Amino acid sequence: MNRRLATWEADGITHWGAVVDAGLVALSPDLPQWPTLRSVVEAGAEGEALAEVENRSTTHDPDSVVFLPPIPDPGKIICVGVNFPDRNAEYRDGTDAPPNPSLFPRFPDSFTGHGRPLIRPPESRELDYEGEVAVVIGSAGRRIAELDALGHVAALTLCNEGTIRDWTRHAKFNVTQGKNWERSGSMGPWLTLFDDPGWIDGAEIATRVNGEERQRDRLSRMLFPIRRQIAYISTFTTLRPGDIVVTGTPTGAGARLDPPKFLEPGDVVEVEASGLGVLRNTVADE
Amino acid sequence: MNRRLATWEADGITHWGAVVDAGLVALSPDLPQWPTLRSVVEAGAEGEALAEVENRSTTHDPDSVVFLPPIPDPGKIICVGVNFPDRNAEYRDGTDAPPNPSLFPRFPDSFTGHGRPLIRPPESRELDYEGEVAVVIGSAGRRIAELDALGHVAALTLCNEGTIRDWTRHAKFNVTQGKNWERSGSMGPWLTLFDDPGWIDGAEIATRVNGEERQRDRLSRMLFPIRRQIAYISTFTTLRPGDIVVTGTPTGAGARLDPPKFLEPGDVVEVEASGLGVLRNTVADE
Repeated sequence: MNRRLATWEADGITHWGAVVDAGLVALSPDLPQWPTLRSVVEAGAEGEALAEVENRSTTHDPDSVVFLPPIPDPGKIICVGVNFPDRNAEYRDGTDAPPNPSLFPRFPDSFTGHGRPLIRPPESRELDYEGEVAVVIGSAGRRIAELDALGHVAALTLCNEGTIRDWTRHAKFNVTQGKNWERSGSMGPWLTLFDDPGWIDGAEIATRVNGEERQRDRLSRMLFPIRRQIAYISTFTTLRPGDIVVTGTPTGAGARLDPPKFLEPGDVVEVEASGLGVLRNTVADE
Repeated sequence: MNRRLATWEADGITHWGAVVDAGLVALSPDLPQWPTLRSVVEAGAEGEALAEVENRSTTHDPDSVVFLPPIPDPGKIICVGVNFPDRNAEYRDGTDAPPNPSLFPRFPDSFTGHGRPLIRPPESRELDYEGEVAVVIGSAGRRIAELDALGHVAALTLCNEGTIRDWTRHAKFNVTQGKNWERSGSMGPWLTLFDDPGWIDGAEIATRVNGEERQRDRLSRMLFPIRRQIAYISTFTTLRPGDIVVTGTPTGAGARLDPPKFLEPGDVVEVEASGLGVLRNTVADE
């Protein structure tokens, strides 16, 4: 799992390309048939694109570019809630764990890229982190069988599924508005091609705030594993290349601590999973 | 309110154009700068497009084309729930009416066009109707003031916000999956340009199943009026041209009847509002 693709901005131009140990290799200028990383995924051309890296030098220094979410223009973004042991208990609402995954959509503009600030709006003091692994769909399917589900995954990335916590409880139907504040979450830093389904069994996801670990769990402990998520979601809607499933966060979000600890301007939040890099964001007031 | 634009398919070609009393006038072949009705709305070119109708004959008979949702490729689709008097009481859950509108997104492929069947999937017997007015955003805004909100509306259309009722209660966070079954809802038949904000005060929305009226109420009785919906939603996310807000359904959905009456194959469902036409769909098993 070391074949990586990213989207970034430099000198006002948006590029996509490869992430190698020495830096970034812009491929978009020479592959105009694929104007975006989404179009690469739609064409199933990730391997072909990465083959172009041979004999090329790096074109950009990761420290001097602006990372965008790896797929800035995804199709559906569907997030899974309450998906790790003890997450249901954290709600302290006396209900049993549900028989099916909780789902909510997020709009693309609710995410920023790696290295950019998460935005705390003036309407709330409750910006909170949620570290998650996101899967990018590579081939379309409806009513995908669990056994086939991982074959529909093109790549993985990290997500800070940032939430304006008090706005998730504004109304009768919950969470839409608290989960869709502009640039309240982030995705990246890059796509890692999903070549090894066995990776899931050994992988951990962790979140740190100013270096202090707040969340850590193993993906193998998900209540609804990734293959079940894909099967369930595709029961009612076709998953297409470029769609993203955000797979759920472990216990330990700031709202669940006693007393709660929400993010403040200047905080640094890092989400990490083995092989997927570190998604790092600061926090700023709007 | 009689300036109307639609999207339809004929002989395998997708057209957009005007709806006049004598039929349909395809404008897309001669206005390639606007490939879709969304691009017309984004350009604010509805008036310019309709001016092209002068001196043209109709090109298509509405009875022999396939209507698509007027904007087949919208941006955000945000639906408002529990928005008419007594709707909260219909839930019989002992809760007070909420202080803010309930919101949930729908994906574009959960809607079909006028005249086409709503699809009942094999996974459920609980396909239900919800007649609503949908507003199409014409100019972008964030934190739009209520007083300015209606100025951001380009057009109106009708929506049957069809729901797979048992799947709205599958999990801890509700409604996403029951509201997003493919082709479970519909939009259309056309866009009516929103020239007269006063229209809202006198307008009624009604839904009939096989000719029997099941829902009827006045838009002026909404708990959260359209201007408040636009102000509230734009607090957390930018509304852009081509985004759609589906504004809520009156009491009388099939699930709330005693005993419940869900839709069956062969049923004909009509949603009507004065000046917006009649959105008619049959029901078919997948």
